[in-house]
Amino acid sequence: MTREELLSAHARIKPFIHRTPVISSSLINELVGAKVFFKCENFQKMGAFKMRGAANAVLQLNEAEKSRGVVTHSSGNHAQAIALASRRVGVKATIIMPRNAPEVKKEAVRGYGGNVIESGNTALDRERTTDEIIAKSGATMIHPSNDLNVIIGQGTSAMELLDDHPELDSIFTPVGGGGLLAGTILAANFFGNACKVYAGEPEEADDAYRSMKSGKIEKNETANTIADGLRTHLGDVNFPIIQKGVERIILVSEEEILEAMKLIWTRLKVICEPSCAVPLAALYKEKQLFKSQHVGIIITGGNVDLDNLPFLNVHP
Amino acid sequence: MTREELLSAHARIKPFIHRTPVISSSLINELVGAKVFFKCENFQKMGAFKMRGAANAVLQLNEAEKSRGVVTHSSGNHAQAIALASRRVGVKATIIMPRNAPEVKKEAVRGYGGNVIESGNTALDRERTTDEIIAKSGATMIHPSNDLNVIIGQGTSAMELLDDHPELDSIFTPVGGGGLLAGTILAANFFGNACKVYAGEPEEADDAYRSMKSGKIEKNETANTIADGLRTHLGDVNFPIIQKGVERIILVSEEEILEAMKLIWTRLKVICEPSCAVPLAALYKEKQLFKSQHVGIIITGGNVDLDNLPFLNVHP
Repeated sequence: MTREELLSAHARIKPFIHRTPVISSSLINELVGAKVFFKCENFQKMGAFKMRGAANAVLQLNEAEKSRGVVTHSSGNHAQAIALASRRVGVKATIIMPRNAPEVKKEAVRGYGGNVIESGNTALDRERTTDEIIAKSGATMIHPSNDLNVIIGQGTSAMELLDDHPELDSIFTPVGGGGLLAGTILAANFFGNACKVYAGEPEEADDAYRSMKSGKIEKNETANTIADGLRTHLGDVNFPIIQKGVERIILVSEEEILEAMKLIWTRLKVICEPSCAVPLAALYKEKQLFKSQHVGIIITGGNVDLDNLPFLNVHP
Repeated sequence: MTREELLSAHARIKPFIHRTPVISSSLINELVGAKVFFKCENFQKMGAFKMRGAANAVLQLNEAEKSRGVVTHSSGNHAQAIALASRRVGVKATIIMPRNAPEVKKEAVRGYGGNVIESGNTALDRERTTDEIIAKSGATMIHPSNDLNVIIGQGTSAMELLDDHPELDSIFTPVGGGGLLAGTILAANFFGNACKVYAGEPEEADDAYRSMKSGKIEKNETANTIADGLRTHLGDVNFPIIQKGVERIILVSEEEILEAMKLIWTRLKVICEPSCAVPLAALYKEKQLFKSQHVGIIITGGNVDLDNLPFLNVHP
């Protein structure tokens, strides 16, 4: 990978994404003892950084590939991002979702023009259905995190953050499938000034932490974390980048995630998914290592189900 | 008032405020049929635009006045803003709050270094206590909305918005005490390009709407609105500015406010107070008048009590 590849990706996806703002809070700075800059990908198109990688992957297709469409399996933000990016360039997007995925998520994908195909509920079912679609249509598979175009696309968030704050000593991301972490490592390497990359990971889904220890991709037996975007595991494309480039993966408990989430909601005044709180929880846990430093955190997405929020009870 | 007074105020308060970002949502644009630009004062220092007016007023004090301190009565954002702005310049701030105000609000003011004095619960009690403090200390009263320095300070938000988006056809604010609306009218007049100013007001606290009709300051008998920042009435300093400069005040129902609030939370991904939703509700109600226009909306603050939010139930 080269610096130029990231610059090209950023130029390529620019018309399809928002340049998201960077915000901060004096109180959080005081609590952490560092200057913390939050890159708000929850304000990204469709509500998450996933739009960057999806747009970059879809825009790299040649005409023949475009005519055959794309396919992915995801019930999260990647599904919506692929649907929206594909619609924007006139490509058919088929999203494989387990039959038991929430109807609201299927509707969201359809709302962005995606063609939802239901599979059985196991990973095996899902892969079988995906293979069938590919065999039938010749569609190109775009993996949520283990795809170099996706990884480079996700890296454009840290590129922008370093453009706004070239002085950053380190950047924190969460780690789930590893796409954002790998992309951020590339961006910090090419555009940072000795900027280190850290990841936060839930104790309850600590596969990346264990993968770094063992030197091979580990999986989770269980993943009982509210950070539901982080239940997946690394892949063979992003793992070597992470192995080489991540400074450290810091584990956090569910309680630490909740506390950080509440801090973001009350002090940053932004709506974020539980996964977004993981890097702040990690930074807070190890704050003595970052005293007076300048630290970037990527707020990854804001697609939460607010239907049960007590709007009638809020008061300033 | 002159353009130069607003420019001076902006330069004066700059070290004490954030330049807040402007964000937008494709879905909201589609729903409204216009391009809507949200100026995020919920990301302002201390969580609301009130910091601008408070800082401008406190910074205008001469040395003798500074030594005697300032006083205000408020149980909302102005109280915290005066406390914080005063602390920043080493001035003693006394905030009169009714005995029955929520303890959490008194604590917030104390947290910013304010000296909270409790009064009885009626407006008369509050004014009597304020007068006693002024008689004793010679402190300067800084009214939340009926003070020219405060009004000009609040106007700096629209100044920045017009600096970022000089093409705006109109700007919407909520109207409560009238400080933000009057300041926005001044800013649009001096820095806009034929930019009109509209206000949204709850039907349940429609004093400003009625004041425009009758030509004198009307008050609310009751104010049963969730937009609790908008229960106050206009004053003799801001009313003439509003009378001359507001294009129209649009009334909205409680249901319309709630719907707009949910739209901001789910689509803009920002935490806002109910009062912030009032201008979006007003724009949406009269959207046929703003077709394809560029419209600014000031998101006034984000200090909501999230203690009862179901953090454990959120899922993307």
